[in-house]
Amino acid sequence: MVEIMRIGFIGLGNMGRGMAANLVNAGHRVTVYNRTAAKMETLVQQGAAPAHAVAETCGGEVVVTMLAGDEAVEEVTLGEHGILASLASGATHVSASTISVGLSKRLAAAHAEAGQQYVAAPVFGRPEAASAAKLFVVAAGAPQVLDPLTPLFDAIGQRTFVVSEQPHTANLVKLSGNFLIASVIESLGEAIALVAKGGVDPLQYVDILTSTLFSAPAYQTYGGLIARQQFQPAGFAATLGLKDIKLALAAGDELRVPLPLAGLLRDRLLTLVANGQGDLDWSAIASLAARDAGVASDHSA
Amino acid sequence: MVEIMRIGFIGLGNMGRGMAANLVNAGHRVTVYNRTAAKMETLVQQGAAPAHAVAETCGGEVVVTMLAGDEAVEEVTLGEHGILASLASGATHVSASTISVGLSKRLAAAHAEAGQQYVAAPVFGRPEAASAAKLFVVAAGAPQVLDPLTPLFDAIGQRTFVVSEQPHTANLVKLSGNFLIASVIESLGEAIALVAKGGVDPLQYVDILTSTLFSAPAYQTYGGLIARQQFQPAGFAATLGLKDIKLALAAGDELRVPLPLAGLLRDRLLTLVANGQGDLDWSAIASLAARDAGVASDHSA
Amino acid sequence: MVEIMRIGFIGLGNMGRGMAANLVNAGHRVTVYNRTAAKMETLVQQGAAPAHAVAETCGGEVVVTMLAGDEAVEEVTLGEHGILASLASGATHVSASTISVGLSKRLAAAHAEAGQQYVAAPVFGRPEAASAAKLFVVAAGAPQVLDPLTPLFDAIGQRTFVVSEQPHTANLVKLSGNFLIASVIESLGEAIALVAKGGVDPLQYVDILTSTLFSAPAYQTYGGLIARQQFQPAGFAATLGLKDIKLALAAGDELRVPLPLAGLLRDRLLTLVANGQGDLDWSAIASLAARDAGVASDHSA
Amino acid sequence: MVEIMRIGFIGLGNMGRGMAANLVNAGHRVTVYNRTAAKMETLVQQGAAPAHAVAETCGGEVVVTMLAGDEAVEEVTLGEHGILASLASGATHVSASTISVGLSKRLAAAHAEAGQQYVAAPVFGRPEAASAAKLFVVAAGAPQVLDPLTPLFDAIGQRTFVVSEQPHTANLVKLSGNFLIASVIESLGEAIALVAKGGVDPLQYVDILTSTLFSAPAYQTYGGLIARQQFQPAGFAATLGLKDIKLALAAGDELRVPLPLAGLLRDRLLTLVANGQGDLDWSAIASLAARDAGVASDHSA
Repeated sequence: MVEIMRIGFIGLGNMGRGMAANLVNAGHRVTVYNRTAAKMETLVQQGAAPAHAVAETCGGEVVVTMLAGDEAVEEVTLGEHGILASLASGATHVSASTISVGLSKRLAAAHAEAGQQYVAAPVFGRPEAASAAKLFVVAAGAPQVLDPLTPLFDAIGQRTFVVSEQPHTANLVKLSGNFLIASVIESLGEAIALVAKGGVDPLQYVDILTSTLFSAPAYQTYGGLIARQQFQPAGFAATLGLKDIKLALAAGDELRVPLPLAGLLRDRLLTLVANGQGDLDWSAIASLAARDAGVASDHSA
Repeated sequence: MVEIMRIGFIGLGNMGRGMAANLVNAGHRVTVYNRTAAKMETLVQQGAAPAHAVAETCGGEVVVTMLAGDEAVEEVTLGEHGILASLASGATHVSASTISVGLSKRLAAAHAEAGQQYVAAPVFGRPEAASAAKLFVVAAGAPQVLDPLTPLFDAIGQRTFVVSEQPHTANLVKLSGNFLIASVIESLGEAIALVAKGGVDPLQYVDILTSTLFSAPAYQTYGGLIARQQFQPAGFAATLGLKDIKLALAAGDELRVPLPLAGLLRDRLLTLVANGQGDLDWSAIASLAARDAGVASDHSA
Repeated sequence: MVEIMRIGFIGLGNMGRGMAANLVNAGHRVTVYNRTAAKMETLVQQGAAPAHAVAETCGGEVVVTMLAGDEAVEEVTLGEHGILASLASGATHVSASTISVGLSKRLAAAHAEAGQQYVAAPVFGRPEAASAAKLFVVAAGAPQVLDPLTPLFDAIGQRTFVVSEQPHTANLVKLSGNFLIASVIESLGEAIALVAKGGVDPLQYVDILTSTLFSAPAYQTYGGLIARQQFQPAGFAATLGLKDIKLALAAGDELRVPLPLAGLLRDRLLTLVANGQGDLDWSAIASLAARDAGVASDHSA
Repeated sequence: MVEIMRIGFIGLGNMGRGMAANLVNAGHRVTVYNRTAAKMETLVQQGAAPAHAVAETCGGEVVVTMLAGDEAVEEVTLGEHGILASLASGATHVSASTISVGLSKRLAAAHAEAGQQYVAAPVFGRPEAASAAKLFVVAAGAPQVLDPLTPLFDAIGQRTFVVSEQPHTANLVKLSGNFLIASVIESLGEAIALVAKGGVDPLQYVDILTSTLFSAPAYQTYGGLIARQQFQPAGFAATLGLKDIKLALAAGDELRVPLPLAGLLRDRLLTLVANGQGDLDWSAIASLAARDAGVASDHSA
């Protein structure tokens, strides 16, 4: 029998709302908070308690943050009346957002100083996976902090990987994973521009790839989007992709690891943003390979 | 009941010998030829007839070439007493080698002028897959030429994809596929250098990747090699990888498709070759990302 | 007849000490400050007054900062008892350091709010040029603020360029100039690796270049260093070069201008730093082109 | 007093016609040949003798070729009734064209076997410099062959550099020089896109650069073209630039020297060609940096 936990959950975007719902469904007592209060309504109908301020989410054993990036996590955690100021000694902050390695280190230090616990547990998967409790959780932190969180992770994902005792290593794995996905997109963009200009049907080409050596979700998802030039609505916007690739490069800076392919991806994503296409799906960097090849795109964004 | 075909087979290297054996096993009458005659012995024991010259392989309905590259295929086909001079009118040359788009076009034209038929049918898969008849065949050519070859393709592979009526498009797909594999290697090399320097275990990292978004053979095979820094013996040597990436770039030149990621791969592979490491597996380009990061490699090649 | 100005001068490194001395020589009343007090001695002997704190340099019409980077300038200006807190209303802060566009904007805003004036005036030239009053000054700011500074700029440089009324544009020009120099180094590194491996004498090659289309100081200085593989002592260390290229990339990020060549330079400089060669002259990135070509370097750093 | 030489001159394009005229003016007996015969008229009026076939230019001590590239030089030299078949034993072929290192080696071998002499002497300079006898000649060959050519080189250029006894090294220097010029263009393109988007006037920016560290012809010429976005008429077309960068990369392939910056230049030039802009001046690659930055170009090509 699983122990019931009192969980605060901050951030009810595309990902967070599914994760919070699954925590409710698993029987936990969940208090949710979102800056735009309207987004809390569905969750409340599903059984969550609404909070009117960050501090109200911090009364239990755990508070989870699932926010857009460093700025939001920093404000919610370190800002006035934030998590750091509100969480009980011994309680745990689970940071599930995709944030920088640097901020994750600062949060770990701040919580430790305050006698609180901190783990990083970013997730892989798109909104559908979040809703279906099919996320992959990549967690890092002290074993005695992680162990009691098992029911929480089980409620939101299909599998949890524990990376190391240093929370920021989980963030590093998450950022490197997004770098790998963007690399898949760029390579598919170039390959499809090449074979399509050479007379091969892009959809059949993607079918060949994903039936053979590249039978992975990343190739299936993005190969289809690129072959169909279907870059909106965005599953993951170019602006967010740019943010993550820059965080990967920043991690490389700090660790002193040159990442030439990440540099190419940065330029591609920055080109989209500079040309007013930051709202397209990040797979739209493939349209730049086609553009440079002089291939007229049907895509009318 | 499958019709028995008379098939010449030229090129008994790591790949060719398994393919030829599977044609014999399927009941076809196979005449094999290899420049180094000793390599024919096993096949002869398995039931193939030995040829002492290229011309002797050209007496049936089909001759298959599975050779190292443009130079060998050009000599065997267009050279004195070669296939072009020896093949009967209406018989078919099946080019399974990884060759340039340009040569494939020239072969198509030459065979057409000689009243012969030509298809390109390069294969995806490593030697083990060739032995096990588990290759993927990517074929292109006129339907009336391809149709009768179905039993042949079925004997060597697990699935056949027909790309278009222009034979060279199959070569383009094959070259672009090798480009995609090399892209996987480069991206894994950078990602592993990053996370390993940040304190994550490379083998566990690869396990996370291949259990989630990257559950494809390319990531499993190369992720393991890179994490273990196991770059020899070479499954596919850096010199051969360089040759293929240069052919992909040449195809991009001819079709006017810039391929910046292929340019990066070219530099990586050329660096290996320039430093006396051309005999390592092409996944050794990952060691360059580690080297640039100042990470001492255990690899002692 | 030139009006005598009361000038504070903060930062007596390789560049600053020559600049300050020239201001003294031009007859101005100069008060100098340096964190390491010993560096003030020579200047005091030359006629400058020593300050024991930043605030003591802020009593005149102008205070000049010539420091290592953003962090130092930020602390000296915005820190406790810093320039912002000490400078008289209507007096001017001349920022001559190579700093980020972002910090320059923040300084402009802070000084404006405090009723003080701010101009950016970074300089081009190496320490010898600073000593000889041969610097090039790239200034930006409001005309009524810049005009009275003419005698100051004339005392330290051979020519002053006024870029625009927005101070940060001068910083942008400075950063882009350092990017151009690093580009010269990289291109020379690749070209020299190529011709040297092909049998051409590197020193003669540089002589040909600088006698013909590339008769500019940047090519003469760096061509010689690269041909002789003379990367120490550093005129400008790789760590500093990396800092500046990263600032150029950051400016590109903010302005949304992709800079692929700057990305390559970043990787090169980061590779030096990651391999313990950050103290070499930044022209040592040329040794990486030679290394990748498998050319044994005589350089024993 | 200079000895009068009998010189054949093949190729009267933008460069060749000025060079041939200067040989006539220096008092030599010059026989000219051009495939399009009309281009010979002016030279004949200036005192040259017209040839109706390549062979007719080969009756003297020297024949000079100044042609568009490998294909033309190969045909004129090795083709039927070409130079190799027509030149007297002991006479010299001076190859002034920008050709590949590989072809230069083949020509050296072929002429040696035929008992003829061969030197490579490519030139730096644009058509105006050719007309004004202000070219720079980069020559390589055996001293006893080069020495008697001094009056010839003096007649066409302002200075001659002798690189080595291996003719192909002069071609290598020429190709690397064009790589350096293209690098200048790319770096200026990125820098100008950056500062212009940041509010700096491009023309003033170029003035600052060329008044300070970059006071070289390459920066003056191309900085002006880029700042004014004046990419036609082409002084040197993008198609030709692409050809030369590809030859530099091919030389790097053969010598095993990775050239990442050359790879970037190749992609830029190929992008122009793929988009129907191959006839623009090669400095138009700068328009691609502006395009990627989302800066609307006034350029209406």
